[in-house]
Amino acid sequence: MPKEEFVNDWFRKRKERKSHLIAEEIYPSLIRGDRTALSSAITLVESTLQNDQSESKELIKKCLKSQNKSWRIGITGVPGVGKSTFIEAFGRIFLEKGLKLAVLAIDPSSNITGGSILGDKTRMEWLSQQKNAFIRPTATGKSLGGVARNTNEAIILCEAAGFDVILIETVGVGQSETLVHSMVDFFLLLMLAGAGDELQGIKRGIMEMADAIVITKADRGNEKMAEMAKVQYKNALHLFPVKESDWIPQVKTCSSIEELGITEIGEMIESFFIKTITSGWLNENRKNQEVNRLKEILDNSILFEFYKSEQIKTIFDFYKKEVSNGHLIAYQAVEDILNEIKKGKFNFL
Amino acid sequence: MPKEEFVNDWFRKRKERKSHLIAEEIYPSLIRGDRTALSSAITLVESTLQNDQSESKELIKKCLKSQNKSWRIGITGVPGVGKSTFIEAFGRIFLEKGLKLAVLAIDPSSNITGGSILGDKTRMEWLSQQKNAFIRPTATGKSLGGVARNTNEAIILCEAAGFDVILIETVGVGQSETLVHSMVDFFLLLMLAGAGDELQGIKRGIMEMADAIVITKADRGNEKMAEMAKVQYKNALHLFPVKESDWIPQVKTCSSIEELGITEIGEMIESFFIKTITSGWLNENRKNQEVNRLKEILDNSILFEFYKSEQIKTIFDFYKKEVSNGHLIAYQAVEDILNEIKKGKFNFL
Repeated sequence: MPKEEFVNDWFRKRKERKSHLIAEEIYPSLIRGDRTALSSAITLVESTLQNDQSESKELIKKCLKSQNKSWRIGITGVPGVGKSTFIEAFGRIFLEKGLKLAVLAIDPSSNITGGSILGDKTRMEWLSQQKNAFIRPTATGKSLGGVARNTNEAIILCEAAGFDVILIETVGVGQSETLVHSMVDFFLLLMLAGAGDELQGIKRGIMEMADAIVITKADRGNEKMAEMAKVQYKNALHLFPVKESDWIPQVKTCSSIEELGITEIGEMIESFFIKTITSGWLNENRKNQEVNRLKEILDNSILFEFYKSEQIKTIFDFYKKEVSNGHLIAYQAVEDILNEIKKGKFNFL
Repeated sequence: MPKEEFVNDWFRKRKERKSHLIAEEIYPSLIRGDRTALSSAITLVESTLQNDQSESKELIKKCLKSQNKSWRIGITGVPGVGKSTFIEAFGRIFLEKGLKLAVLAIDPSSNITGGSILGDKTRMEWLSQQKNAFIRPTATGKSLGGVARNTNEAIILCEAAGFDVILIETVGVGQSETLVHSMVDFFLLLMLAGAGDELQGIKRGIMEMADAIVITKADRGNEKMAEMAKVQYKNALHLFPVKESDWIPQVKTCSSIEELGITEIGEMIESFFIKTITSGWLNENRKNQEVNRLKEILDNSILFEFYKSEQIKTIFDFYKKEVSNGHLIAYQAVEDILNEIKKGKFNFL
């Protein structure tokens, strides 16, 4: 069969499939931990095709029945801090214990390429060859909040596939840190030991979210500078309010290349999970994260539906002009808009 | 008439008044620049009584006809930086030129006292005795976004009363800076010259908003430290993107007590206004500020109306439980909620 004909045939067959078929096909292999099935499953939830979406919904529902027992760890840091090298070294300690590790990379800025899968495999060469490791960038969805949704669902799929540790890595800088923080149990901030201005590069809000700061590239000959930075960050962390988890954020140094300090970071994270699982915080926090997400997504959806209406567009544009021309102030314009909507018995959904 | 009777009588009379009476009474004195009228007008717009609100609306509409020709300057800085002393010294240069100066203080944290009017008068002793100066804290409104609305309307009233310069001072620390920035033309950040950690105290986002950083308490004997801080902040400001106004943020030092550097700050601000009025940015920015405010308030109002509905409360609570129990993820719950609303032909206003 010539290639073009094959492709058309494949698409036709795909279209003809019943709604639950793919989900039902993938699920058994997925829960056995098959990496190809996991990969297809993530592709499925990332798809924007109508058919795929209903299948994806079925699949996620099935997967939710499997317990969330993984450790969800967020890793962030400015470009150049050595995230990939750190993840290679850090990931190894879990694999050596016989655990299964998934690395999900978020890059909201890569709208065009849709994630650099090949790039990722090269970045973490050793890890990508291990049978108990799974590396996957999250493609940026086309819909509102696409990246967030895709990553969130990818976490559930990885857990259903039996992955014990899930690292969520932010590749971009900026808003994605808050997003990642809302999805993980432990938030790790990688920092470089620099001269003087260390605190400038990273926003205070991001430092405040951190459960640990790890100073990378504390290679031989560089230990002194790293130690100095450690003291500085420790002092800075003292200024933040106590965390709800009762966990006291720690500062560590490491050399990913020389494999120094990596074991200590692993032990620290283990003690975090022991502490928060025992106290019940971990479970409580995951519930809260999901409820907060519900409110946030609902808010966005409501506003999206509202402004989508042609009726509202007309009214809003009129008042925008009024306000822009200084005939009304914003507060009064809003009152008038609400009154107009009430009069018109506007049905926004 | 005994006191109680008098009070009851006053309230009764007040209730009986026609809707436009007060606005019509206040307006003529207000535009003549009468400070008592201005004070009553601000009390009126801050009032939450139904009658007062419709009068307040009338009054604001009348005032909007008078041109916005004042300079709106935001002043912020951590407690202890010397804001009041600075405003006393800084305000004097405008008064000496024969200009009229209003100082509006925002303190979103003072929910209980509703602003410290007496406190303010003592804080700026000299200024409060000048006939061309008007000092007023904004009472925190009880409604959603109350402080923002009150301050916004107070600015319009001050401009109608012919005030040439309006200083908006944040007394609290935190969110109010962004609020103030959205209302002013020029944003001034006061900083202390400290040892080493200067950049920690204030969020990067606030520094990014600043049109000028003024290092206070550069008193005799303290000049060296102030100069060092100046260099440091200058370097820090270089890292931020160029402003839309094309204005290059400046760093100045001053001693409010010894009146050193104050004139230079006045000259800097004058050159800012000359530049941005000429380029048209000032006018454009005010329009944009008002349109942004419209969108922001409308968003909040829509969501407020939405969640207020009993129907929605029931649906939302149900799905909150589902999500909290792990039966559904947030994304799916939102889809289901939207479907339920569509089915029920929900009328939210």
